[in-house]
Amino acid sequence: MGKVSIRDVASLAGVSIATVSQVLNGKGTRFSEKTKAKVLAARDEIGYVPNASARSLKQGARILVGVVVPSLRNPFFGDLVQHMQENISDNISLSIMTARQGQADQTVETLVNSGVHGIIMASQLAKPVAVASSLKKRGIALVVLENHDELLDADAVYASDKKGGRLVAEHLLALGHKHVVLLGNQVYTDNLQYRTASFKETMLAAGAKVSEVATRNLTKHAGRAAAMAVSITQATAAFALNDELAIGLISGLNAHGIRVPEDMSVIGYDDTDYAEFFRPALTTVEQPLWLIAETALQTVIERINHPDAERQVAAFDTKLIVRESTASIS
Amino acid sequence: MGKVSIRDVASLAGVSIATVSQVLNGKGTRFSEKTKAKVLAARDEIGYVPNASARSLKQGARILVGVVVPSLRNPFFGDLVQHMQENISDNISLSIMTARQGQADQTVETLVNSGVHGIIMASQLAKPVAVASSLKKRGIALVVLENHDELLDADAVYASDKKGGRLVAEHLLALGHKHVVLLGNQVYTDNLQYRTASFKETMLAAGAKVSEVATRNLTKHAGRAAAMAVSITQATAAFALNDELAIGLISGLNAHGIRVPEDMSVIGYDDTDYAEFFRPALTTVEQPLWLIAETALQTVIERINHPDAERQVAAFDTKLIVRESTASIS
Repeated sequence: MGKVSIRDVASLAGVSIATVSQVLNGKGTRFSEKTKAKVLAARDEIGYVPNASARSLKQGARILVGVVVPSLRNPFFGDLVQHMQENISDNISLSIMTARQGQADQTVETLVNSGVHGIIMASQLAKPVAVASSLKKRGIALVVLENHDELLDADAVYASDKKGGRLVAEHLLALGHKHVVLLGNQVYTDNLQYRTASFKETMLAAGAKVSEVATRNLTKHAGRAAAMAVSITQATAAFALNDELAIGLISGLNAHGIRVPEDMSVIGYDDTDYAEFFRPALTTVEQPLWLIAETALQTVIERINHPDAERQVAAFDTKLIVRESTASIS
Repeated sequence: MGKVSIRDVASLAGVSIATVSQVLNGKGTRFSEKTKAKVLAARDEIGYVPNASARSLKQGARILVGVVVPSLRNPFFGDLVQHMQENISDNISLSIMTARQGQADQTVETLVNSGVHGIIMASQLAKPVAVASSLKKRGIALVVLENHDELLDADAVYASDKKGGRLVAEHLLALGHKHVVLLGNQVYTDNLQYRTASFKETMLAAGAKVSEVATRNLTKHAGRAAAMAVSITQATAAFALNDELAIGLISGLNAHGIRVPEDMSVIGYDDTDYAEFFRPALTTVEQPLWLIAETALQTVIERINHPDAERQVAAFDTKLIVRESTASIS
């Protein structure tokens, strides 16, 4: 079969080449939903990929892998991509993009247009099933770092947030805490939903009380800004949804004269490097970041080489790391 | 009338784009009142709005900008690219790549092959003159975040490391330190060379002694591993070449029973967010990261729009931030 061109997509969809180009580049706001749907369906049906000539994988060919993360201000994602970068063979390049909630689907198209052979997606897709299906038809590998139950067209690599949330709850319960604040974003990714659901379930099943304080995002500054709201709950411990929030919360609590862990226990999540270097060193949940990075890379390369292989899912364990920021109720 | 750009303001005011950028960003303290007034009058006369430049390419055209940094494990670079990401208009996408010493030149070619219109380069190029000349011939914009004296074919945006190194030395001298360790990488980028040269010059001119301890890289872990080597020099203060090293060094010194700043002063560089949240909070040198990010973006977009315009160089000021990790010799 010969190369398919944008002309073929236009012809099949019954629209102009310019229309196809604009819709596929995310600039089709002036077209009707029906027109856009026709273009996307035509693209997928014939497997059109922009710059297709640059894309066929031959022996020794360079491979371009896109990596999409929510924010590079969070050291968890900085470390994740850096670890990938330091573990790839010479013929692979990583094109890293950041995409917040709502941006990830468009970022996929930008990466496809820049010629990636595969994508590792750590941001939340708005329409994971549609995106995965579309990439599959176009022969572009996709590995998601989320646990999407309904997603059958993409390989997945993740650490168990269900277990992680439970570990946090069990640790705080074992220390005697009966009233705990859950501190975090109000808009949850699937991973964060699993994390919070299992945390709350375990706490409530033990008869403990969970107060919730929402933050604008998951940064140190958001954690610090939430310190007053956390302290007025009168809870004896707080679960911050990541280490950045926990570091910020502790700093804010200290500024209000509240000592950690003497007056309040704080536990984070991720076990970033800072958890160890910060004082008090953070109690947190380790996600096996290096293992996730390496497995995601291996999986995307396998998928690029074997587009029709069976779906791969790697779910890794999470681990409680007890340091200085949590203590028993005295 | 078409969109107005920062270039139009500069042209009307009869000053450089860098001057306009600094004045409009409130960082023009080193300019005369007359210059500042001219810039503001020009801005108002033509109705310039910052970020308009980012939209002045052909209506609706998508722009792909490559950003190359040495490591995303260093929060300075994570914050830098994240700030760029949060300040671009919808039609611009950033493709971020990391490249260590020796890899940057190849990374440029990878980005060119993926279709970038311009590149912001924060890694050290092995052959900056050759790379810049080659990109110029191919019509691809290049902005370097280094101070390469010999580089005439690329726009440059950077903070003054010459001043930064001097500020560190003057601060330690003022506190009475006569023997100081310089802690850092043995392979220096141009920026780091300026930083260390002016530091050593200022120390030696004052009759102080500088011991040097080399580290494998500029990470927290390298800083911690160097604590013993630093302590046996018997110096009373250490200048760690970035905040990551300083955080690691302090942690390592504490583990050996050496208190900071009581037993030894430690000063970092960059003023990353962690400098403020760490305990003891770090004395450090602030690089105006947001200004660097925004100006680099503006400059690369301007260059994409006006390939034949005059070369632009924006050199920003650095600033000493005194916190808790340095103290007077008692």
